[in-house]
Amino acid sequence: MHTQAPASLPRRRLLAGSASALAAAGLASFHQGAAAQSAAPAAAKPLPGYAGWKNADAVIVHSSTTIETRRGAFGTSVITPSDQLYVRNNLPTPPESIVADRDAWQVQVSGVKEPRRLSVRELKAMGLETVTMVLQCSGNGRGFFPSKPSGTPWTVGAAGCVVWSGVPVRDVARALGGVADGMKYMTGTGGEVLPAGIDPKTVIVERSVPLEAMQDALLAWEMNGEPIPLAHGGPLRLIVPGYTGVNNIKYIGQLAFTDKESEARIMSHGYRISPPGGKGDPSQPSVQQMSVKSWINGPLPEDGELAPGRVQIHGVAFGGMHAVKGVEVSVDGGKTWQAARLVGPDMGRYAWRQFVLQADLPRGSHTLASRATDAQGNVQPEQREENQAGYNNSSWADHAVTVKVA
Amino acid sequence: MHTQAPASLPRRRLLAGSASALAAAGLASFHQGAAAQSAAPAAAKPLPGYAGWKNADAVIVHSSTTIETRRGAFGTSVITPSDQLYVRNNLPTPPESIVADRDAWQVQVSGVKEPRRLSVRELKAMGLETVTMVLQCSGNGRGFFPSKPSGTPWTVGAAGCVVWSGVPVRDVARALGGVADGMKYMTGTGGEVLPAGIDPKTVIVERSVPLEAMQDALLAWEMNGEPIPLAHGGPLRLIVPGYTGVNNIKYIGQLAFTDKESEARIMSHGYRISPPGGKGDPSQPSVQQMSVKSWINGPLPEDGELAPGRVQIHGVAFGGMHAVKGVEVSVDGGKTWQAARLVGPDMGRYAWRQFVLQADLPRGSHTLASRATDAQGNVQPEQREENQAGYNNSSWADHAVTVKVA
Repeated sequence: MHTQAPASLPRRRLLAGSASALAAAGLASFHQGAAAQSAAPAAAKPLPGYAGWKNADAVIVHSSTTIETRRGAFGTSVITPSDQLYVRNNLPTPPESIVADRDAWQVQVSGVKEPRRLSVRELKAMGLETVTMVLQCSGNGRGFFPSKPSGTPWTVGAAGCVVWSGVPVRDVARALGGVADGMKYMTGTGGEVLPAGIDPKTVIVERSVPLEAMQDALLAWEMNGEPIPLAHGGPLRLIVPGYTGVNNIKYIGQLAFTDKESEARIMSHGYRISPPGGKGDPSQPSVQQMSVKSWINGPLPEDGELAPGRVQIHGVAFGGMHAVKGVEVSVDGGKTWQAARLVGPDMGRYAWRQFVLQADLPRGSHTLASRATDAQGNVQPEQREENQAGYNNSSWADHAVTVKVA
Repeated sequence: MHTQAPASLPRRRLLAGSASALAAAGLASFHQGAAAQSAAPAAAKPLPGYAGWKNADAVIVHSSTTIETRRGAFGTSVITPSDQLYVRNNLPTPPESIVADRDAWQVQVSGVKEPRRLSVRELKAMGLETVTMVLQCSGNGRGFFPSKPSGTPWTVGAAGCVVWSGVPVRDVARALGGVADGMKYMTGTGGEVLPAGIDPKTVIVERSVPLEAMQDALLAWEMNGEPIPLAHGGPLRLIVPGYTGVNNIKYIGQLAFTDKESEARIMSHGYRISPPGGKGDPSQPSVQQMSVKSWINGPLPEDGELAPGRVQIHGVAFGGMHAVKGVEVSVDGGKTWQAARLVGPDMGRYAWRQFVLQADLPRGSHTLASRATDAQGNVQPEQREENQAGYNNSSWADHAVTVKVA
């Protein structure tokens, strides 16, 4: 499996393959075998150039490759505006030149009966579909782990609900004669140019998902009504609804149907549910499908003390692979629960829903929590599942907020 | 009815009430009794300061108060991104200072049993709802009138599909004891500071809609997930789903339930369906509810010559007051029609739907047209309804495009 990048990528930006060069390229933690980068305090850092168009007031810049949406910035309009959407890149962002001629970008499609390279221009003629889905980093909620795992200490803002447009992967496969016999995975490979002198497997962004995920997957060129920004994987991104962010390969250079999972380190050792104190290995569960989760976005402690009286407690809830059936809200830290009202449009099972509970809060301190249930009856758990890297935190207790009414 | 503006509005920007001062303020055409402003050529003008955050590549700047979305910029993701959304202001945009403390903005609510002023902060505690709707300028499509009516020559881009969040007007009315007896209209008044020395009725933005429109109306503080930008009526806008843009009052300063229509000139003489050559007067129909309409956004002539083969013909369709039931597409200028596929989420009856028809186009010239039907069986007409100001153009023939395949 090779990852030839478009010729337009300037190679002068590449660094020699030494440890210090890797560190300079922000790859040190990868080289050390951890899928996370060093935890940075949420101080006010400037937006990196490729994301300079983001709304600085609405985000927290953790590092040049990790930007989080502020909890108070999530509105109540379902879709997360692009200029507030989180960023988490596993490799340094490619140069702007790769979006200069978007339609010329090519993806190699393999593991089909008639493999070939396809340009975005050709893909656009093959089909058109949209999907609205929650895009969420595997480590969203890591900041609530008392064990302080290494990696970005995201709280709730490494997630957003986004509309993608592109061609269904199943249409592409069909046009190329169908998936070859015996294939069990859909494997996407990022088109980033890799540092020279390093085994590509140690750094390449390549992830495999079960073959059935292709049914709802897109090769997407548009996000929220605009060509996908470079920061979010433009010109072309593999969209795998219901799967955590890392499985949605940016700058996709190869889409392969394969009989085995990728042997890239990000697949074999990264993004694995390792026991506390342990290291990732291929025997452990891979971080892929998301599960039911919700959180409150208002009121929040950072809004200051509230006046006594009526509040509209609101937040978002999603089921990962399944639609949300309902959301309960507690104003007493989880002792009692009331059914919240779902508001706004239902944009399909992969999207999140907004919920609202109207409550009258007297003077005092109130711990507000939300708990979602999906269409299969799965209930958001009270406790996180402990794991070394701080993945998949859907604990309602961790996501509760305490507000003061004075 | 008075329109007291918040004290924070700097009055130094106001001009004396002479004709030349009105002209300088962009109000000349209003003073002359026409609801339109002078037609400006679609040359590349700079974005005005209050809209400097718009995507300059995606819009056409007609004037400092009229900005159109480029037809080719409408994506296929249902929601129109805020940075591409059209702008049409009837008065010069208020200063940024009015959005410095959004929650402090106040609206006077009258024509209820317990009239009072409410701040945005208070409104936010009273209820929360969202609505997705097509926002469309009454004059969208004016550019297709051969009579070249005065006013901005919009083609398709004085429209967008937008998500609003706010409090339902019915919740506000209920909290204030209900609508007073005998009221027949909901009348919204813009909070702009008016030029001194002129009869306010000649310039004030004040519109009445039938009382029943309050059922789905919002007092909204959020658009597409962010506080409503100043350019779009923040801090608070009256949203009347299904009604043309002018009825959705920006910077709303007063919401009144009234027994008569407003006597403001913009209501009595502006936005009336006048016969060709005639002038607006209160006996003529007011431009209010939108009707069924659609247009194609790709492929377009400006994309250049197409290669022979498959294309995905796509566009948007909406029913105004009713959901879209279906869309037909013609590739032969309306001689024959095929049912298009509706794609993407259905965001409610006031939103537009995306449609796609896959077609194989041989070499030659092809006129592509779309024709929508709403849930009531109303079919988008072939011909526009002639009127002096070029309002309400929903003609499918006018909106057809001719592409070349070579």
